[in-house]
Amino acid sequence: MQRTEVTAIIVAAKLKKCLKWADIAKKIGLSKEWTTAALMGQMTLDKKQATTIGKLLGLPPEAVDALQIVPYKGSLPSAIPTDPLIYRFYELINVYGTSIKALIHEEFGDGIMSAIDFSMDIQRETDPKGDRVKIVLNGKFLPYKTY
Amino acid sequence: MQRTEVTAIIVAAKLKKCLKWADIAKKIGLSKEWTTAALMGQMTLDKKQATTIGKLLGLPPEAVDALQIVPYKGSLPSAIPTDPLIYRFYELINVYGTSIKALIHEEFGDGIMSAIDFSMDIQRETDPKGDRVKIVLNGKFLPYKTY
Amino acid sequence: MQRTEVTAIIVAAKLKKCLKWADIAKKIGLSKEWTTAALMGQMTLDKKQATTIGKLLGLPPEAVDALQIVPYKGSLPSAIPTDPLIYRFYELINVYGTSIKALIHEEFGDGIMSAIDFSMDIQRETDPKGDRVKIVLNGKFLPYKTY
Amino acid sequence: MQRTEVTAIIVAAKLKKCLKWADIAKKIGLSKEWTTAALMGQMTLDKKQATTIGKLLGLPPEAVDALQIVPYKGSLPSAIPTDPLIYRFYELINVYGTSIKALIHEEFGDGIMSAIDFSMDIQRETDPKGDRVKIVLNGKFLPYKTY
Amino acid sequence: MQRTEVTAIIVAAKLKKCLKWADIAKKIGLSKEWTTAALMGQMTLDKKQATTIGKLLGLPPEAVDALQIVPYKGSLPSAIPTDPLIYRFYELINVYGTSIKALIHEEFGDGIMSAIDFSMDIQRETDPKGDRVKIVLNGKFLPYKTY
Amino acid sequence: MQRTEVTAIIVAAKLKKCLKWADIAKKIGLSKEWTTAALMGQMTLDKKQATTIGKLLGLPPEAVDALQIVPYKGSLPSAIPTDPLIYRFYELINVYGTSIKALIHEEFGDGIMSAIDFSMDIQRETDPKGDRVKIVLNGKFLPYKTY
Amino acid sequence: MQRTEVTAIIVAAKLKKCLKWADIAKKIGLSKEWTTAALMGQMTLDKKQATTIGKLLGLPPEAVDALQIVPYKGSLPSAIPTDPLIYRFYELINVYGTSIKALIHEEFGDGIMSAIDFSMDIQRETDPKGDRVKIVLNGKFLPYKTY
Amino acid sequence: MQRTEVTAIIVAAKLKKCLKWADIAKKIGLSKEWTTAALMGQMTLDKKQATTIGKLLGLPPEAVDALQIVPYKGSLPSAIPTDPLIYRFYELINVYGTSIKALIHEEFGDGIMSAIDFSMDIQRETDPKGDRVKIVLNGKFLPYKTY
Amino acid sequence: MQRTEVTAIIVAAKLKKCLKWADIAKKIGLSKEWTTAALMGQMTLDKKQATTIGKLLGLPPEAVDALQIVPYKGSLPSAIPTDPLIYRFYELINVYGTSIKALIHEEFGDGIMSAIDFSMDIQRETDPKGDRVKIVLNGKFLPYKTY
Amino acid sequence: MQRTEVTAIIVAAKLKKCLKWADIAKKIGLSKEWTTAALMGQMTLDKKQATTIGKLLGLPPEAVDALQIVPYKGSLPSAIPTDPLIYRFYELINVYGTSIKALIHEEFGDGIMSAIDFSMDIQRETDPKGDRVKIVLNGKFLPYKTY
Repeated sequence: MQRTEVTAIIVAAKLKKCLKWADIAKKIGLSKEWTTAALMGQMTLDKKQATTIGKLLGLPPEAVDALQIVPYKGSLPSAIPTDPLIYRFYELINVYGTSIKALIHEEFGDGIMSAIDFSMDIQRETDPKGDRVKIVLNGKFLPYKTY
Repeated sequence: MQRTEVTAIIVAAKLKKCLKWADIAKKIGLSKEWTTAALMGQMTLDKKQATTIGKLLGLPPEAVDALQIVPYKGSLPSAIPTDPLIYRFYELINVYGTSIKALIHEEFGDGIMSAIDFSMDIQRETDPKGDRVKIVLNGKFLPYKTY
Repeated sequence: MQRTEVTAIIVAAKLKKCLKWADIAKKIGLSKEWTTAALMGQMTLDKKQATTIGKLLGLPPEAVDALQIVPYKGSLPSAIPTDPLIYRFYELINVYGTSIKALIHEEFGDGIMSAIDFSMDIQRETDPKGDRVKIVLNGKFLPYKTY
Repeated sequence: MQRTEVTAIIVAAKLKKCLKWADIAKKIGLSKEWTTAALMGQMTLDKKQATTIGKLLGLPPEAVDALQIVPYKGSLPSAIPTDPLIYRFYELINVYGTSIKALIHEEFGDGIMSAIDFSMDIQRETDPKGDRVKIVLNGKFLPYKTY
Repeated sequence: MQRTEVTAIIVAAKLKKCLKWADIAKKIGLSKEWTTAALMGQMTLDKKQATTIGKLLGLPPEAVDALQIVPYKGSLPSAIPTDPLIYRFYELINVYGTSIKALIHEEFGDGIMSAIDFSMDIQRETDPKGDRVKIVLNGKFLPYKTY
Repeated sequence: MQRTEVTAIIVAAKLKKCLKWADIAKKIGLSKEWTTAALMGQMTLDKKQATTIGKLLGLPPEAVDALQIVPYKGSLPSAIPTDPLIYRFYELINVYGTSIKALIHEEFGDGIMSAIDFSMDIQRETDPKGDRVKIVLNGKFLPYKTY
Repeated sequence: MQRTEVTAIIVAAKLKKCLKWADIAKKIGLSKEWTTAALMGQMTLDKKQATTIGKLLGLPPEAVDALQIVPYKGSLPSAIPTDPLIYRFYELINVYGTSIKALIHEEFGDGIMSAIDFSMDIQRETDPKGDRVKIVLNGKFLPYKTY
Repeated sequence: MQRTEVTAIIVAAKLKKCLKWADIAKKIGLSKEWTTAALMGQMTLDKKQATTIGKLLGLPPEAVDALQIVPYKGSLPSAIPTDPLIYRFYELINVYGTSIKALIHEEFGDGIMSAIDFSMDIQRETDPKGDRVKIVLNGKFLPYKTY
Repeated sequence: MQRTEVTAIIVAAKLKKCLKWADIAKKIGLSKEWTTAALMGQMTLDKKQATTIGKLLGLPPEAVDALQIVPYKGSLPSAIPTDPLIYRFYELINVYGTSIKALIHEEFGDGIMSAIDFSMDIQRETDPKGDRVKIVLNGKFLPYKTY
Repeated sequence: MQRTEVTAIIVAAKLKKCLKWADIAKKIGLSKEWTTAALMGQMTLDKKQATTIGKLLGLPPEAVDALQIVPYKGSLPSAIPTDPLIYRFYELINVYGTSIKALIHEEFGDGIMSAIDFSMDIQRETDPKGDRVKIVLNGKFLPYKTY
């Protein structure tokens, strides 16, 4: 069973059972961000987590198996995303990318922000002029090794 | 004078004068993130801001003029960035994009996080296991209008 | 059920029942432009709208469900459209893009015309030399925030 | 003299002389939209128009000549525009393209909206919730010929 | 029923019935060029034409319906065609494109040759050194409108 | 001296001397189509032709030399042309390509229309409803060799 | 029946019957190179050849029919081949392309080596340091026609 | 001095001195094919070869130096060549690639024809129906190592 | 049976039988690296190896056959890999490619490291600061032949 | 001064002074691999290292400054490298990428091999059948964080 099929089954089951991503995340004791990414086919569950999710959503055994295999990552159908919500993030990198690079290097020197030792938090920020989306990206700084 | 030339002059002058982006930003009373983006050729300064920056960095008058024209935005030389620091952000969108979409839609309904009515804050977070980069993205939620 | 399948069912049902897009739009009290976009898989219906459309076109329940999920937007099969009618709009952006940018910035300053807080109106304009298509694009101006 | 150089000279001269696109357009009795496109290197001026513009902006004779040669059109540096303002129009085509196609075909039959026998009008629409950009596209419908 | 499926059925039926494109075209009183394009999924038939073709080739009713819907045009699987016969035409545009542009503009001024108000005629030209393909392209000149 | 520079010099000289492509072609006794292609950097002149053109247009000796070297052909800056006049031809291939292929194969069998043993003729066709561009493509049919 | 399906059936049948390409080629009296290309979906068989191959490999009648239709040529799944054996040929063109061009033009003048009036021969050349692949490409020189 | 500049100087000098590639090759005792590739910027000369060529063509010392540095190979300006002569070879790979692969594997097993331990020979083959280009590619077969 | 289907069956069977790649490799007496590549559809097994693997994993006979056919190689779905683990290797080539080239050429002269007469070894290297992946690439140096 | 210009000056100076990369590396006490990457414009030197290199190679002061700025990384002119030596590494990723992924995940679980906390060692391995290139890649394993 392909991981994309597992994702489709999960999305349909979640809809039918009127569950929120945060509800599912709570069952395995992890954040809604990581859990959503895992169920969207980007992260790997351990046996216990997969079984719990499998029961909650009524997944077939092969789907439970598939959730425990490390997936070929990348969730977008094209190099430059066409979906407006996702494109805005691509645009931010295009507009702000060299600035982020300049500021991180000024503060930390040569290296990168890890996308692996990384966490993300998405919150609603209420605002009288219109509520806002607040996303916190938090990644370990990894300096380039000299040798 | 092309905006890319202005950026090159600014980067060289900043280096020679040993200024930090935050130092420059303070002079015009704005954040280091917005100011860096502006000087990297992505935002537009008003006359007073451009003059202040011009004096601080010793820019020629045409450069001061150019800073006040709205630039053709986009700071990266290729659609998929080759620089490892910037690529990590592209990778985050590729891996987490559909999850961010799912979580924002669940919370707010159909719409996007604005990349225009938007601010960003980059901070160092000290950590005994290695300091971390913390980036807060903050954008107004814009619901799709029905008509 | 994939949204593209829902679109295919809708197009077939509409054909069989000899309905016009404007007829369908009237049933949910919205414009023909927004309604067509929604049924083409680009917008999200609420429960009442989806049920109304479902009855009108005789859609299966999963299709009615699917219409209420925010879709992954983007309706074209390639980055540069091959269809002559749609390509003409791409060409207009290519030829007029920098002019539109110059004129909007001159009038409003740095910022964009929203594609979210946006409406569109398509009309036939009769003309003795051959009727014309008149399309009105109407989007809120969003100024770049400084911070 | 390359047309792109002519454009650069024009933009610099316009800035120095504090002229608006509409001011320049008035001198040759045409709309600000067509005039801007012409001066941005996309349309062709006749001798009289070119001379008028040349005097107004103090252009060198080769630039005045160049304005009368039909240019190789296309004003964007990449197939998918990176500039946020221009990208929003690309996004509109991506999201609404199949809907525009469906509605025009329903109204007119098989054919296209001309991008040549075409005019455009850009206006500010005041609105208490934030002013809006209103763009009217007006193109002759051209039916596919059968033969 | 997708238009590509209709095309496949038509090609198979034509083969089985040993019909030539010109034979089919005669039945609906149009040229072999337009008719082939229509049956290849690029043009739209009216009810009478579709019914005639349907009877001639023994098409199922959904195929007859589908022939009356304006198709999403573009018949090639890649932006640069791999098929040698079709590539030669792409090569002609690449080699002769700027010359065709120069000659048409010299004769007609700024504008284009319409690809909509257009007809094509393909003939064999006998030649003792080897027969030749003669293709006549005939399109209305459309001048750029000034406004 | 690069061939593109030679082309630029030729275009400028032609403009200054108010010559038409057909005038230049007559001087070397060839068609306006072939001559324009040669001067646009796509064909190779022999010594006599190059000298004649050189005198007529006042070209420097290196330009006359360069016209006699077989050029690296291809006159367009991008794989899919952005110029509307040239794009229309690309569109014709996209829409009609498979039909042209079907009709030539039906008439001649497997093979191609040569783009080398090829000539082209561009004419104005007067028409009360608006003059038309008539382009005749004439290429030898080359059958695929079996061996 | 799609030509790619026919190819798949042929490859499977050939494997089961332990036939070599050269064995099959002998049955229709043609070279192994042309025959392989034909059965790989790139050339067109006549009725007799197709029937012979059909019997030899036990193909279904529709496959025998399909072999007689001129295929849409191009046997590679991507513009730059990923398979190392095929890529080496692409690399040879990239490294040697301009040299081949220079040498052919020096010998023959402006024109091309035909890829249609063309044959190819692939042989093993024994060599004590390791056997070698020897491929002879043989194509008619086609001079550019002047007109 | 960039290798592409060296190539330009060589091509100009060769033209002025009316030398053929084969003449130059003889001076260093190598084939015209390898020598042309080297002078086109794709191979590396040793000191003696570079000095000989330098004297013959009157190259500046930096050019003689540059000929001895291993170049970044690849002589074509785009992934799919636009020049008709070079494109024909690309087409041959596209049409015959899978057949060449099948025939080499059948003869030699899994592996490739080396593009490094490789030689090429280009000859004119006289033919009453029109002379032909004969190109012999000769590369060592390299079997995939198992380990 | 397509090779990609064979790979899918193998991956599923391996999972069900809780085998490691190294376990499977031992059965055919080869390295885990080569064996994995073969079962991932990139290398060719001989009859004995294929039969052994077939028994071990319970493969259907057509899969055992398919493993003995040389595959069309290339295991990634896009030219630039989206999977973070695989992308890191692409990044290494992008960042270090010109350095690897400089160092190999300095040591060996013009030529390449073979990717065919090649072996690879992947090991865990324990490290108190976090275990490391150690990959040894070992390929024969192939000098460019002069001729 | 652009980093690419600095690289060009360094390569020229190194050639003139007959230095090896390893000689230069010794002066700053680092490996030849890291040093070459730094001088090729991919790593950042500290003040002392830059000054040492500057003296050794006789670099202008702006070049010494530039070596201390973190560069925009990526040393290849195209997404898929055309140079045969560098392409072989791209090919290895394409052929072995999914196998490397499978073996690392089997050994370490979900995560990546760091390309930042990374070192590389390139050595000649003498071999009677032809010397070999041995490249050791050594990167820290970074497990995906769950949160």
